[in-house]
Amino acid sequence: MVAELVTVGTEILLGNIVNTNAAYLSEMCAKLGLTVYYETSVGDNPERMLQTIQTAVERSDIVILSGGLGPTKDDITKDIAARVMGKELVEDPHTRDRIQQYFDNLSIKRPEVKITENNWCQAMIPKGAVVLDNENGTAPGLIIEEGEKTVILLPGPPNELKPMFERQVYPYLQEKQPEVIVSQMVKICGIGESMVETMIEDLIDGQSNPTIAPYAKTGEVHLRITAKAKSNGEAKKLIKPVLRELKLRFGKNIYATEEKKSLEEAVVDLLRDKNMTLTCAESCTGGALSARIVNVSGASDVFKQGFVTYSNKAKRKYLMVKKSTLKMYGAVSEKTAKEMAKGGCFTTGSDVCVGITGIAGPGGGTSDKPVGLVYIGCCVDGHITVREYHFNGNRSKIREQAVVYALTLLRDCILQSYS
Amino acid sequence: MVAELVTVGTEILLGNIVNTNAAYLSEMCAKLGLTVYYETSVGDNPERMLQTIQTAVERSDIVILSGGLGPTKDDITKDIAARVMGKELVEDPHTRDRIQQYFDNLSIKRPEVKITENNWCQAMIPKGAVVLDNENGTAPGLIIEEGEKTVILLPGPPNELKPMFERQVYPYLQEKQPEVIVSQMVKICGIGESMVETMIEDLIDGQSNPTIAPYAKTGEVHLRITAKAKSNGEAKKLIKPVLRELKLRFGKNIYATEEKKSLEEAVVDLLRDKNMTLTCAESCTGGALSARIVNVSGASDVFKQGFVTYSNKAKRKYLMVKKSTLKMYGAVSEKTAKEMAKGGCFTTGSDVCVGITGIAGPGGGTSDKPVGLVYIGCCVDGHITVREYHFNGNRSKIREQAVVYALTLLRDCILQSYS
Repeated sequence: MVAELVTVGTEILLGNIVNTNAAYLSEMCAKLGLTVYYETSVGDNPERMLQTIQTAVERSDIVILSGGLGPTKDDITKDIAARVMGKELVEDPHTRDRIQQYFDNLSIKRPEVKITENNWCQAMIPKGAVVLDNENGTAPGLIIEEGEKTVILLPGPPNELKPMFERQVYPYLQEKQPEVIVSQMVKICGIGESMVETMIEDLIDGQSNPTIAPYAKTGEVHLRITAKAKSNGEAKKLIKPVLRELKLRFGKNIYATEEKKSLEEAVVDLLRDKNMTLTCAESCTGGALSARIVNVSGASDVFKQGFVTYSNKAKRKYLMVKKSTLKMYGAVSEKTAKEMAKGGCFTTGSDVCVGITGIAGPGGGTSDKPVGLVYIGCCVDGHITVREYHFNGNRSKIREQAVVYALTLLRDCILQSYS
Repeated sequence: MVAELVTVGTEILLGNIVNTNAAYLSEMCAKLGLTVYYETSVGDNPERMLQTIQTAVERSDIVILSGGLGPTKDDITKDIAARVMGKELVEDPHTRDRIQQYFDNLSIKRPEVKITENNWCQAMIPKGAVVLDNENGTAPGLIIEEGEKTVILLPGPPNELKPMFERQVYPYLQEKQPEVIVSQMVKICGIGESMVETMIEDLIDGQSNPTIAPYAKTGEVHLRITAKAKSNGEAKKLIKPVLRELKLRFGKNIYATEEKKSLEEAVVDLLRDKNMTLTCAESCTGGALSARIVNVSGASDVFKQGFVTYSNKAKRKYLMVKKSTLKMYGAVSEKTAKEMAKGGCFTTGSDVCVGITGIAGPGGGTSDKPVGLVYIGCCVDGHITVREYHFNGNRSKIREQAVVYALTLLRDCILQSYS
């Protein structure tokens, strides 16, 4: 079945807010196996909203609208949706009671809040519609059905929309679905997007069910295998040989096949498995590598210490980088990265240390050492690997890439240390 | 003039990413005085994309598309847009050279990166289109004009889209506008969104030209004053009294009136002005504060050292937090935050140190010390201020808020130290 999203609100069109509802509802639809072809944002103008909802209802089975259910004059989503579906508005006594109750409760805490005539508009519903109680506000959600078409209206505030969707809309939509959709993630690091694409060109050319879709992230490529079938087991059976083939082709470069596992989580898991502790010694990345590692819940099991040694003095004091190294080779050099990694292990007693030094720009580059030059050293149980990288982009992009490649190198070195 | 946004990508429809490009482009259109009535997201299906672009071109003067310009088979935006505008594709030698150059640069240093046949597709452009060089990737942007209609194609990755828009598309669109639009940014920290809105309710209610639009960011609110006039000078004259009024109302909470200045830049500037050096001592934020400071170009002038002291042992060793403090009050306590800030100044000889300790979750919370509890200590010239915060959201949201509030507290304390 095909679903379509319409998010209503001038604040979206003005860029005042990022449309997280659309992302949330899209993910939920994907999880439900609903295909989403279009998402539209529109303001609170009656003609344009009418046209948008009409188009959506014509080309999709289920239209999910969010926003514009409030009590003000601008909130016209319900009226327009009712008109498109050919329903008149009638008062719903249950909703009227709930609104009364909501304000009764509120006025105990905040006596200045008064119920206004506008609020009663929210008790009017399209005839025959299913009312979705709002646990966190006054505007109820609505499901309007007519023939093969369904229109679902949800309030705009995410803290009202999400619980309403999870508790009431998700089970409703799940029952409507004839097919099961299963998707399988394959996350790859250390190979660029076009190289990955070239390596699976034949698979993508021949695909129908399952499909493979590549998503390029900074320094990573994610491949999503998606299969449709009559049952969960059948869909998984379709995915299995494709997953096996991708594993054959990308081998060790696959760092995860779990939907939610990040590269830093894979690294933390690996460190935990090997019973190793980690120290990060960062110059140009300024703590961003540590921050990514620490964003993993439970990172404290493996993360020993982080140093942001931006100055030469700090590199010497905390990482035992030699004065002569800094003088002869400079702070951005293979030798400095090596000593940072080694010194980090030594001073903290960690099993593993990554040292990063580079020129993130925009200033500080020379013809010899241009902006984007980064050295990453990795010391694992005394064995040190150093690699030289040349990244493109602005300051924050260079730093972001340095962090991803540091995680990739770290993963490589730990894997190698035990092979 | 009416602009319309079309963001392309299955990853948007599947909810894999939040559509920040749409929010960015909407804000830029508002800044340019362009009216946006519709925003659509569509996948990489030729028929649906064709229909979407056609509809957009019919009802709007300017259509801005983002995404689907990459080198993979999925990337069809350019072909479809060219078809809608009735243009054939021809090779652009300039773009071909740039792609060659990009890979030459890349492959000298990273021999594993190979140029593939796919990459050359990116050198094909609709006949007569204006090519927008991509400083951060291989896919060029394009401006296609035909009669009264303009279609602008931008790459999907935000770090490619934003600089391209700012440097090349913004001035182009500005020239197309019959009226001069001037906007003035006012960036506020330390006051919540609804409080800011309440404080300017009367101004917003009575506004027509200039207008004030609030943009809520994590821990910050940005207000954009926008005026339309026949000349630059006239528009600025309209803005002046509104800016003065906002300065009166928000005072010291305004950290910048420059469009591009970030909170961390304001803090670095302040430290530089006062000739002060900074050390960051982070626990739950794991280096994210240091990373934000170091992302400011020239931060080395003021940034002395960063410590990520996740363990009690590290807090004692590098920040001289007392064993008894950790034992009696715990690692997440006012007293620990205070000692971290003080110890960081002492061991490094910095004038200023921020210490952050908290519970980012999802584990580790108790009824006494729930997830989201964060203490931030700030030591400036020996004077220490500690504040307690209670943040909502998931692990990364809590850490992000902790970083912004640390920057805000840091700014407050430095300002106060000289008053």
